Amino acid sequence: MDLPVDNKGHRGKPPGKRSLSDTMLALGARARAAARVLATADTEQKNAALMAMAHEVRKAQTEILAANKRDIDAAKEAGRPAAFIDRLRLDVDRVEAMAKGIQEIAALDDPVGEVIASWTRPNGLEIERVRTPLGVIGIIFESRPNVTADAGALCLKAGNASILRPGSESFHSSRAIHAALTRGLAAADLPEDAIQIVPTIDRAAVGLMLKGLDGAIDVIVPRGGKRLVGRVQMEARVPVFSHLEGVCHVYVHAPADLEMAKEIVVNAKMRRTGICGAAETLLVDRALAETHLAPLILALIEADCEVRGDAEAQAADRRVVPATAEDWDTEYLDAIITVGVVDGLDAAIEHIEAHGSQHTDAIVTDDQEAADEFLARVDSAIVLHNASTQFADGGEFGMGAEIGIATGKLHARGPVGVEQLTSFKYRVHGSGQTRP
Amino acid sequence: MDLPVDNKGHRGKPPGKRSLSDTMLALGARARAAARVLATADTEQKNAALMAMAHEVRKAQTEILAANKRDIDAAKEAGRPAAFIDRLRLDVDRVEAMAKGIQEIAALDDPVGEVIASWTRPNGLEIERVRTPLGVIGIIFESRPNVTADAGALCLKAGNASILRPGSESFHSSRAIHAALTRGLAAADLPEDAIQIVPTIDRAAVGLMLKGLDGAIDVIVPRGGKRLVGRVQMEARVPVFSHLEGVCHVYVHAPADLEMAKEIVVNAKMRRTGICGAAETLLVDRALAETHLAPLILALIEADCEVRGDAEAQAADRRVVPATAEDWDTEYLDAIITVGVVDGLDAAIEHIEAHGSQHTDAIVTDDQEAADEFLARVDSAIVLHNASTQFADGGEFGMGAEIGIATGKLHARGPVGVEQLTSFKYRVHGSGQTRP
Repeated sequence: MDLPVDNKGHRGKPPGKRSLSDTMLALGARARAAARVLATADTEQKNAALMAMAHEVRKAQTEILAANKRDIDAAKEAGRPAAFIDRLRLDVDRVEAMAKGIQEIAALDDPVGEVIASWTRPNGLEIERVRTPLGVIGIIFESRPNVTADAGALCLKAGNASILRPGSESFHSSRAIHAALTRGLAAADLPEDAIQIVPTIDRAAVGLMLKGLDGAIDVIVPRGGKRLVGRVQMEARVPVFSHLEGVCHVYVHAPADLEMAKEIVVNAKMRRTGICGAAETLLVDRALAETHLAPLILALIEADCEVRGDAEAQAADRRVVPATAEDWDTEYLDAIITVGVVDGLDAAIEHIEAHGSQHTDAIVTDDQEAADEFLARVDSAIVLHNASTQFADGGEFGMGAEIGIATGKLHARGPVGVEQLTSFKYRVHGSGQTRP
Repeated sequence: MDLPVDNKGHRGKPPGKRSLSDTMLALGARARAAARVLATADTEQKNAALMAMAHEVRKAQTEILAANKRDIDAAKEAGRPAAFIDRLRLDVDRVEAMAKGIQEIAALDDPVGEVIASWTRPNGLEIERVRTPLGVIGIIFESRPNVTADAGALCLKAGNASILRPGSESFHSSRAIHAALTRGLAAADLPEDAIQIVPTIDRAAVGLMLKGLDGAIDVIVPRGGKRLVGRVQMEARVPVFSHLEGVCHVYVHAPADLEMAKEIVVNAKMRRTGICGAAETLLVDRALAETHLAPLILALIEADCEVRGDAEAQAADRRVVPATAEDWDTEYLDAIITVGVVDGLDAAIEHIEAHGSQHTDAIVTDDQEAADEFLARVDSAIVLHNASTQFADGGEFGMGAEIGIATGKLHARGPVGVEQLTSFKYRVHGSGQTRP
């Protein structure tokens, strides 16, 4: 039991709130203490813990699936839609995939201690910029229980302690997974507090995390829908790595190979419609609208995509639904796309600036100069030439597992992998130098 | 005149506040528009603007000094202390130093466009991580009018627009300098809104900037005393690059060359006592206290430093004043130091963790292993071995001009130079790749 050490400042609050606040502050303090140990834990010890965590997850399969059944039953009782229940559901394969995911994180290079840059000053001082852990990372997520393992393991690899706050609907599943993770930490002699889970479904705990638990949390990563991410971005008093949405564009500029354009557009939209890198808008340059617009729309419709569009798109195919003003700003996360004709590169870039979300945008063209200009001027985390927006993913970038994608410009932008979960410091080696 | 475009949400506010809010939002929108132009301005154009800015500052010397006289007279009238008036004062030499400072910034490498990393994926995708500007930077400063030129020029070099909010006491001086800077921008055909100054001394403008001007400000940099920085850190809803204070330590560990230790300690404390990298605490290891403690204290006293200390320090020299609990946490910024004896490396690191400010800390020792451990475990932006803490400075690091030193772990840590004022994005070059 955590007894409050100090009641100062808590007087007058209702007893329930006081005790939640104390619980969360104590949890934050334990995370900070664990982070101090992790900061100097060596690669071997962290990897041993990760391998033990994977082993314990496999060993706990029965308990994890039993806990998941409780969550699933409650979600069905509550009349949750099938897609929700699918995100929540674990089975033997998904538990195995979680364990494998942890092993893959163990196999990544350890970023901590890496010398990013080093140089010698004229006075002989040797300066090194070296990667260090960030500290304590708070993860607030929704119904996918596997985030418990993925996020906890990725934070650990980068030497960070984590505080996990699962959605109330995946609470039992997450707790069962978390129990396995802490057994793995203990087996490698790392503090169990290195990965903690908020022990209550009280939503007030989220508000306390967003205030930083008295300086104990360095970064918050929200994982979930727009409503969750929006709340976190609005309320957080600590830095947040996140993207609110991915309103991604594909712009086809003349000259462009029609076959390549069709393949990229259909893949960008339809390969998986529910991911943030899926395209939501197709912009076709007026210079090739006559030859390319109708075939591109046809390819989308043949791939079972609903096409909404401007007057030109409607004229090109009578199955195109008129687009409303709202459509151009919408992340459908579904088999729907909005198609429009733009007057050249400038107009395309202006459209993306006005309607995009600074996430991922692509140009398809054989004109190298236009491509270079698009890549330079579009102010998004990821800009692509002649490739599908669905490559917006840490794994596809070769960065290994990612905790999410960030559209902010500070610290982490684009895929947030193990490197992006580090900070750095300057080590200066002297031989008695003083400053004149 | 800026007419409010939209009064929604402003109803009910007093007219004065409404108009300030509208003024500031319009200023933010103009900064954002200028930032868009700066983002793709080439190095030559930015450097031409910087050279023209330096020229205009020199040309405006008479007006700048006249404006400064108004500020100085008002400060004298208000009975401000001599040190304050010295910070505020400009003369021919200081105006020339400002112009030279701008030219030095022009001579720095342009960080924008630099490819930080690049690699090719097995599917042929070429991925580049390339530096981009951050966007719009808000600078909130106090009485030193030269910050107007230094900060505006450094932000411009990194392709960022800036919004400068000088202290009310340097308002006339800063406006005169700012007028010269905008003439330089115009001469190089860059938008004058690239460097803006808040046109009022109303302190409410600071509060509005800290809220981010409706998303127009990407980062705030406070330049000034602890009270200003503390307010900014507490209230800002946008990221802040700052340090609250520099409670820097020098730890002398056995074995250590006494002469080197004396030189480093006296330099770290006394070279300039008013900078954030000045040492405030000396920790002497018990293993060499008998031989080193008294001579180190003597060297400090002979350099006209007041020494406060624990029982051991008092026993070593009767001129040592007993240290209070508060002394160990104090940034004196003056010729005062606190001296204590610690029981080994662990105790020294624990002391620094408990009392330091994660700014700059140094170890003096001939024991390489102990030095490595100190540099690894002390969680400060800058850690030094056998060198003075006064090297904590962007110029001394060879990074060129700096806008300040940051002790946060996100994005910029340590000296904040032109590189730290950039973000990055991913450019992906394909040849028709789609994701399987």
